[in-house]
Amino acid sequence: MKKGCKFGTHRVLEPVGTLPQPALKIDNTMEIYDNEILIDVQTLNIDSASFTQIKEQAGGDLAKIEEIMMGIVASRGKHHNPVTGSGGMLIGTVKEIGPALEGKTDLKVGDKLATLVSLSLTPLKINAIKEIRKDIDQVDIDGQAILFESGIYAKLPEDMPQNLALSVLDVAGAPAQTAKLVKEGDTVLVLGGAGKSGMLCLYEAKKKAGPTGKVICYGRSEKSMERVKRAGLADVLITGDATKPVEILEKVREATNGEMCDVTINCVNITGTEMSSILATKDTGVIYFFSMATSFTAAALGAEGVGMDTTMIIGNGYTKGHADCALNCMRESEVLREIYTELYA
Amino acid sequence: MKKGCKFGTHRVLEPVGTLPQPALKIDNTMEIYDNEILIDVQTLNIDSASFTQIKEQAGGDLAKIEEIMMGIVASRGKHHNPVTGSGGMLIGTVKEIGPALEGKTDLKVGDKLATLVSLSLTPLKINAIKEIRKDIDQVDIDGQAILFESGIYAKLPEDMPQNLALSVLDVAGAPAQTAKLVKEGDTVLVLGGAGKSGMLCLYEAKKKAGPTGKVICYGRSEKSMERVKRAGLADVLITGDATKPVEILEKVREATNGEMCDVTINCVNITGTEMSSILATKDTGVIYFFSMATSFTAAALGAEGVGMDTTMIIGNGYTKGHADCALNCMRESEVLREIYTELYA
Ligand SMILES: NC(=O)c1ccc[n+]([C@@H]2O[C@H](COP(=O)([O-])OP(=O)(O)OC[C@H]3O[C@@H](n4cnc5c(N)ncnc54)[C@H](OP(=O)(O)O)[C@@H]3O)[C@@H](O)[C@H]2O)c1
Ligand SMILES: NC(=O)c1ccc[n+]([C@@H]2O[C@H](COP(=O)([O-])OP(=O)(O)OC[C@H]3O[C@@H](n4cnc5c(N)ncnc54)[C@H](OP(=O)(O)O)[C@@H]3O)[C@@H](O)[C@H]2O)c1
Repeated sequence: MKKGCKFGTHRVLEPVGTLPQPALKIDNTMEIYDNEILIDVQTLNIDSASFTQIKEQAGGDLAKIEEIMMGIVASRGKHHNPVTGSGGMLIGTVKEIGPALEGKTDLKVGDKLATLVSLSLTPLKINAIKEIRKDIDQVDIDGQAILFESGIYAKLPEDMPQNLALSVLDVAGAPAQTAKLVKEGDTVLVLGGAGKSGMLCLYEAKKKAGPTGKVICYGRSEKSMERVKRAGLADVLITGDATKPVEILEKVREATNGEMCDVTINCVNITGTEMSSILATKDTGVIYFFSMATSFTAAALGAEGVGMDTTMIIGNGYTKGHADCALNCMRESEVLREIYTELYA
Repeated sequence: MKKGCKFGTHRVLEPVGTLPQPALKIDNTMEIYDNEILIDVQTLNIDSASFTQIKEQAGGDLAKIEEIMMGIVASRGKHHNPVTGSGGMLIGTVKEIGPALEGKTDLKVGDKLATLVSLSLTPLKINAIKEIRKDIDQVDIDGQAILFESGIYAKLPEDMPQNLALSVLDVAGAPAQTAKLVKEGDTVLVLGGAGKSGMLCLYEAKKKAGPTGKVICYGRSEKSMERVKRAGLADVLITGDATKPVEILEKVREATNGEMCDVTINCVNITGTEMSSILATKDTGVIYFFSMATSFTAAALGAEGVGMDTTMIIGNGYTKGHADCALNCMRESEVLREIYTELYA
């Protein structure tokens, strides 16, 4: 059996010497190296920014979506959307564990798991697409995937349905980072707060900011905002378009008596919201860009352009304990669990 | 006289409702609104990532560089490189000050200033290109520019030559942020440490990390590394290619006895160095991406992909006091001043 590198560089075909994530093409033959885990895949959860782009390109047509997805995997060896650069994650069953991992992993053959590394670096083979659940970015497939030694994962919990866990784990980084960034008394804005990651962020923000804090949900459709309202997830609800910075500036100024926000969490799935995030946040504040549609230069030059000293953080999807943090939201809040079950499971 | 918006939205032609930085096209007629400042431009300092791209596209040919630059400004109303998304800055003389700024600005007509907002949002008109100093990204022009009310600037200091001040102010955000991030005893890595922003970062890092800290310069060419060595700017010098993450991982591991870095400052002017920055930094460390060639998704998914909890900061070019911090490097360190004078002034 061949010996593999911890980070999976042994699978990179192009350009050689890079890591699997930035690579253009990786080797997706499903014969494992000594430190890899082979997974029988059940469901792919395509990243929201990526799936939105694919649906648009396909004009919503299921057969065309299937064709685009198969095309991406055929050309790259992984579901790494060439337009958005993003991936997603998957759930499946452990089929084989490389001998070099013995004693290093708590997994055994037959365990159900969710990979918490992006599909944009995960060797994947799709034999057939079985079902596309277009509205929740989930795709059931017949296929296999490889988890590298450095790849993080979570065993699927026993106390909730698989699809519920999958949906929540997909965005686990967001609530965990929110919990780390928000302090008591903070004014917090969640852009795209009525979405899958957004609602978990609202929930954690409210817990941390406490009764002296203020949590603002900025969302688009009446329907999803109504949901947030009923669930009591935010202190202030603003319906508007996150791509209109001047509009946001005015609305948030009003909602905060001109003080603006200490922490802004960007959870939208569309491009062009960097300036909105910047103008809504205090000069001394922090912006956490969880959205994969964020442009680095637009954020960096945008803040400089208006002379704002704001700290802007790149949304690392991983932080310690993030899987537990996200799953605990479902355990702690009955109303959140109901919403996520209805919407995503 | 027409009344303008603080952020310059009144000049956005396409798409309307956005801010000047992300805009595709802005109005560059040189008739000021009531809150604008008109500048007679002397020199443009094109952002390094942008100028590298332009030089490549032009195959190094001066006439072709001129054509590309004129083309960018003609189509966008600003020097906003459509490929890299970045700009640069300028120096010039105040020609006219809008009446609404009276009492709000310390500038007067005739003052020499450097704009500290990106060229990617600055209305610019180039009548003629006078001289292209290809090796230092500086271009003398006959032309005019507009500074918005929210635009930051620095009056040119009396105690150093203009071109020296211009070069240093161009990258002022980097040393100031380094000074904010580095603590006593830290191990600090500067990728591209032998460049214009890199050397200032090394200098500030050494000041802050102190004798118990360790400052590592990672650079490419022997010539520039030799300069850093002679100036004593770093404790450890590593020559290598910043686009090779596994190579960096090993070299930095060796230089830090396996501990890796607390703070990494990315100052290269090329793409594909996100993973190198991530692998060289501690799980609990901070990466400051000053390079405009940084890809948001490559950083976010890259860190997640290897299960690293690193905090990654988007290099906001502005932070309070950044102009003074950068100019002070020239005042405090004779050797730095000599190097910058020789290279850039
Ligand atoms: N590793 C990572 O960092 C990581 C992992 C997973 C996902 N992500 C990213 O996180 C983002 C959100 O993911 P998600 O699963 O939470 O997506 P989602 O459920 O689709 O939520 C997106 C939200 O954005 C809102 N929105 C869209 N356009 C808007 C506009 N113009 N103005 C205001 N709100 C708008 C939507 O509002 P409506 O509900 O009204 O339509 C929706 O609530 C995506 O960009 C994804 O790429 C990152
Ligand atoms: N607002 C902002 O945040 C802001 C403002 C200004 C500039 N910037 C960005 O900051 C970055 C650096 O600007 P600068 O003016 O300092 O540029 P610079 O003087 O050209 O320095 C770039 C350095 O990167 C090094 N380098 C290039 N390729 C390398 C490789 N493969 N491996 C290792 N080192 C490599 C170069 O090494 P050699 O010397 O050996 O060639 C050089 O020292 C640019 O990307 C620019 O866009 C950002």
